[in-house]
Amino acid sequence: MAQTNGFMDAAFAEALAAGERGEVPIGAVVVRDGEILGRAGNETRRLNDVTAHAEILAIRRAAEAVGDERLVDADLYVTLEPCTMCAAAISFARIRRLYYAAHDAKGGAVESGVRFYAQPTCHHAPEVYSGIRETEAADLLKGFFQTKRET
Amino acid sequence: MAQTNGFMDAAFAEALAAGERGEVPIGAVVVRDGEILGRAGNETRRLNDVTAHAEILAIRRAAEAVGDERLVDADLYVTLEPCTMCAAAISFARIRRLYYAAHDAKGGAVESGVRFYAQPTCHHAPEVYSGIRETEAADLLKGFFQTKRET
Repeated sequence: MAQTNGFMDAAFAEALAAGERGEVPIGAVVVRDGEILGRAGNETRRLNDVTAHAEILAIRRAAEAVGDERLVDADLYVTLEPCTMCAAAISFARIRRLYYAAHDAKGGAVESGVRFYAQPTCHHAPEVYSGIRETEAADLLKGFFQTKRET
Repeated sequence: MAQTNGFMDAAFAEALAAGERGEVPIGAVVVRDGEILGRAGNETRRLNDVTAHAEILAIRRAAEAVGDERLVDADLYVTLEPCTMCAAAISFARIRRLYYAAHDAKGGAVESGVRFYAQPTCHHAPEVYSGIRETEAADLLKGFFQTKRET
């Protein structure tokens, strides 16, 4: 298992809270200088908004908190490999480092799918660290969808 | 020039209004059954939000208006080829048809860049109609960035 720190714990706490609300259990936090600037779990159902993924909400909240749309020198921790939409938003926000837990071969866009950060239309790529607590994050998602199918 | 209709006019009106506010002049509308459900120009500066592209805002407003995050049978008109983030959001919202004006080789993700709708990680692709009033939309953007460089 890769090294972890308290920020990935905070992302997992957001993922668990999302699951308890009946949302897909994915969580994210944006961190700068050891401080969490924005945190969120998935809220697509509650907000009736397909764009309300944890990463997008955490970025929007962090930008609001600091009064700047660009989050230079900030890092993002998320429990699942970002999708195509979120990978691009992370790039636009100028996130410095991206840490994520589970890989997502079906919908991911960092090491799967369009691999956005390796493309010529990507104008800022974060450093990427993946696989941190991967099994735990994957099990959380599997459990959620299994429960949904059974009910 | 391709056939146009009043909905692309409405997208251009949003683009012009965005330019007048000092935002990048791009506009979008979401339409269903001949009715505009959501309209927006780019608002990244005003909202301090890198995700506040015209398409994202128009989709969010349309979803709020109809009370459903999925905009089945709705069409989206936008003055520029959607970027990677917006192309994915359009897919998630289940937009039926996407009409856009100018192509964007540098940042687009439909016929340029990652060509998201042709990828295995894209689970819903809209029908795409592009090049409608292309020169007009491209000139609007060129004029905006030229004025910015001169001031």
